[in-house]
Amino acid sequence: MKAIVYVTLKPSVLDPQGKAIHHSVESLGYEGISDVRQGKYFEIAIDDTADTEASKAAVERIAKDVLANPVIEDYKVEMINGDR
Amino acid sequence: MKAIVYVTLKPSVLDPQGKAIHHSVESLGYEGISDVRQGKYFEIAIDDTADTEASKAAVERIAKDVLANPVIEDYKVEMINGDR
Repeated sequence: MKAIVYVTLKPSVLDPQGKAIHHSVESLGYEGISDVRQGKYFEIAIDDTADTEASKAAVERIAKDVLANPVIEDYKVEMINGDR
Repeated sequence: MKAIVYVTLKPSVLDPQGKAIHHSVESLGYEGISDVRQGKYFEIAIDDTADTEASKAAVERIAKDVLANPVIEDYKVEMINGDR
């Protein structure tokens, strides 16, 4: 079983790294791109013997306490059974 | 229209940052987690007037040239129409 955690800056928070990427991409000649925002992505492998609901609750806590800064970041947890 | 790009280290590449997170999570008392790997996540906003197929091809090129290092990283592009 796998949990995927997406961590993104809240929409109201400035993203200078995304702005830098946007600028680079524009200077490379790509057109029609209005914004780039960068986030983080975590794949957490969980023992298959664990209960899915309990694991999801644990990963939600991990996301909130360790992976994201809830003051400026949003997070989303997705559980995946089997390979991807 | 939005393009989402996921960049992950290839499975054969060591991920010291993921290992450090795994260790922290274990020392916080969470059990049953066998591995943590960190990747990057990009949201690219594209003008709605652009053609979806052409935009996807452009984002694939951006992912390969700018966002990922294809020697050690894999990437995946997903197109999303409307809000998410």
